[in-house]
Amino acid sequence: MSTITPVGERFHAELTELSTLTDSDRPGWTRRALSEFDIAGRDFARTLMKRAGLETRIDGAGNVIGVLRGRLGGREIMLGSHTDTVDGGGRFDGVTGVLGAIEVVRLLQESDVRLDHDLVVVVFFNEEPNDFGFFCVGSRAMTRLVDRTTLAAVDTTGRSLAQALPDSGIDPESFLDAAYDFSKVTAFLELHIEQGPELERIGKQIGVVETITGINHFKALFTGRQDHAGTTPMDVRADAGCAAAGTVLAVEAIAESGTNTRGTSGQIQFTPEAVNVVSATASLEGEFRGPDGSWLNEAQRRLTSAAAEQSEKRGVHVEMEWTTDDAPVPLHEPITSTIAEVADDLGLSRATMFSGAGHDAGIIAAKTQVGMIFVPSVDGRSHCPEEFTDLGDIVPGISVLLEAVLRVDGRFGS
Amino acid sequence: MSTITPVGERFHAELTELSTLTDSDRPGWTRRALSEFDIAGRDFARTLMKRAGLETRIDGAGNVIGVLRGRLGGREIMLGSHTDTVDGGGRFDGVTGVLGAIEVVRLLQESDVRLDHDLVVVVFFNEEPNDFGFFCVGSRAMTRLVDRTTLAAVDTTGRSLAQALPDSGIDPESFLDAAYDFSKVTAFLELHIEQGPELERIGKQIGVVETITGINHFKALFTGRQDHAGTTPMDVRADAGCAAAGTVLAVEAIAESGTNTRGTSGQIQFTPEAVNVVSATASLEGEFRGPDGSWLNEAQRRLTSAAAEQSEKRGVHVEMEWTTDDAPVPLHEPITSTIAEVADDLGLSRATMFSGAGHDAGIIAAKTQVGMIFVPSVDGRSHCPEEFTDLGDIVPGISVLLEAVLRVDGRFGS
Repeated sequence: MSTITPVGERFHAELTELSTLTDSDRPGWTRRALSEFDIAGRDFARTLMKRAGLETRIDGAGNVIGVLRGRLGGREIMLGSHTDTVDGGGRFDGVTGVLGAIEVVRLLQESDVRLDHDLVVVVFFNEEPNDFGFFCVGSRAMTRLVDRTTLAAVDTTGRSLAQALPDSGIDPESFLDAAYDFSKVTAFLELHIEQGPELERIGKQIGVVETITGINHFKALFTGRQDHAGTTPMDVRADAGCAAAGTVLAVEAIAESGTNTRGTSGQIQFTPEAVNVVSATASLEGEFRGPDGSWLNEAQRRLTSAAAEQSEKRGVHVEMEWTTDDAPVPLHEPITSTIAEVADDLGLSRATMFSGAGHDAGIIAAKTQVGMIFVPSVDGRSHCPEEFTDLGDIVPGISVLLEAVLRVDGRFGS
Repeated sequence: MSTITPVGERFHAELTELSTLTDSDRPGWTRRALSEFDIAGRDFARTLMKRAGLETRIDGAGNVIGVLRGRLGGREIMLGSHTDTVDGGGRFDGVTGVLGAIEVVRLLQESDVRLDHDLVVVVFFNEEPNDFGFFCVGSRAMTRLVDRTTLAAVDTTGRSLAQALPDSGIDPESFLDAAYDFSKVTAFLELHIEQGPELERIGKQIGVVETITGINHFKALFTGRQDHAGTTPMDVRADAGCAAAGTVLAVEAIAESGTNTRGTSGQIQFTPEAVNVVSATASLEGEFRGPDGSWLNEAQRRLTSAAAEQSEKRGVHVEMEWTTDDAPVPLHEPITSTIAEVADDLGLSRATMFSGAGHDAGIIAAKTQVGMIFVPSVDGRSHCPEEFTDLGDIVPGISVLLEAVLRVDGRFGS
């Protein structure tokens, strides 16, 4: 077992500097993908990689890739996460895994430990949802999950992703051609904040992720009839807004009926937006998440049925579209058991976890063995300015990441 | 009884011409108060008034006032309605009463009938809700229901009503000083489309309005906690959006429990507007209407309680504000019975009505005796492009208005 200790102050200084590369016109720490702030954030990470001794490049999909050559060559261990944020997001989501991986490289260099494997650190492009309806964009490009349909998707202004990418230095044709050769990757490891309250609640230091949630996004459009709010009796209305509101409550009730299942209605709009007019239409967007694919299928079926019932009884027409249909992703036992063993050997308390958030690791898991290491989030808060993890809780996560890399290197070598 | 017959074609041509003075960038026939289109609409009405032989002026609050001098002088009968519309509104709401009153003037002139009373025709400024939270603005100014608080109200861009009025040629100081001397007004009569389905449903030609609805507008702000939609378990969320949706359904259920009562949720917004974030806040605006003041008070109490319950069970904080608190307005029996008698004498079928819409007549009723005449609306549609009343249903309304003027002039003279 290694006795190398991460330098928390170094990580903290870098996290603080990175947190200044954000849009000051938005709440919290906002560094959305496809913005100038995201370019600055990935540049900053690349500079740190170079200083740590990595050979760096940017692939065709905007992923920053740094390589520390191993003794034998030919086989790789990949680490990574992202530096983009949601609007009004926090400082730790994604950034912890990027800076943690770079700290692991520095610790290996400073300790003169040379791996058999090449160690590859990736800052994935655009992990958070963008305005074109996609997330985990960089990791999807690396695993060949993007195509011309992806490029043709438009935001609310009618601009396509193909038109938006060049502003971030990404050529659309190269974007389609950014597939990574995962045949040489022994394992992928991602350190991340939990973003939920579980570790804090049960008082554990390390979360060993067994499954990454499935995510099903929906868009619903309710079409009723625009009428005068004063003269139209309740029993002859076709109020699209009420049908949408009933569906919001159905999302909540369905999600409450499962285990580790979540349902959220994130956006709603009544049209016209006038206090004295019965809504002609209402749009609603939301999602279900859960670790069990059959439950997600059942939730889709139940919500489609509930939206139809809420609409039918009001004479409203509804169209439901399921825009994302990602199944839950089980992570790989050889890697998760290595992480658990490392935590035990380092004397850190640990728990087996389900990740309610989607991660690049969930995309990469289709191509190689994947493990994720969670550290606690204060009050479980994330995707908000209050998102926080104490440095004293992050350092153990970096220790586990480092030691897991060493053991994977030794055990699953070329 | 008079045998003067309204000229439907004249009315129809004027209605058609007025309907072209609308914002072509908006759906339906949009001529919102405080827009250039509204100025054009009121100018058009003033031109018609002048042609009909009225002495016209515009008061300090933008109301267009035309006077046909009577034989005795000193006493007045007032007619009027409005030419502004809601966004995406129709061609008949308000316009029918304005053009109908002008037609009455012309018919009197053409028949050489001279009234004892001065006949005053008013095109009220800004009857429909504006972006500053007010409606029936011109009639409120005439009845001294505006003050510096009204002028200080702001729209969503932060512009005050005082800043907006000059663009419509209205000086804010004059606006506050536009009170009308109603001591000389014997009665006020307003012809209007029903805007609801009742007359059509029961197959009657004329609605005699007994009561104008009370209107209670509310604004609710739900404050929950912004959280990650995937990682935050359902039982620890404070989802402001779900509390708002539950309140939308409470508005509907409370309104369904009364007689001739209506409840509408017209505007809703979740913040942030992101599909993968639990809503930090949700805003909701809506209203109750009904003919019974005690029911409205009870509805306010029940909704405030329902919003609190929907919020409390989700750990959400709610602030409810009742921004409009207009009690139902009973119209005046001597005038309503005159209208009913006129309809009977003209051989027109009639019904006693409740008006679910607010009207300038409801404001003027605090100052003089008021009566309203309704004509049917096809399918009860209003505040939408489909709003329609057949010319054959409007002409009887104008006949009733004319004959009611003659009878009021004879019976309630000076």
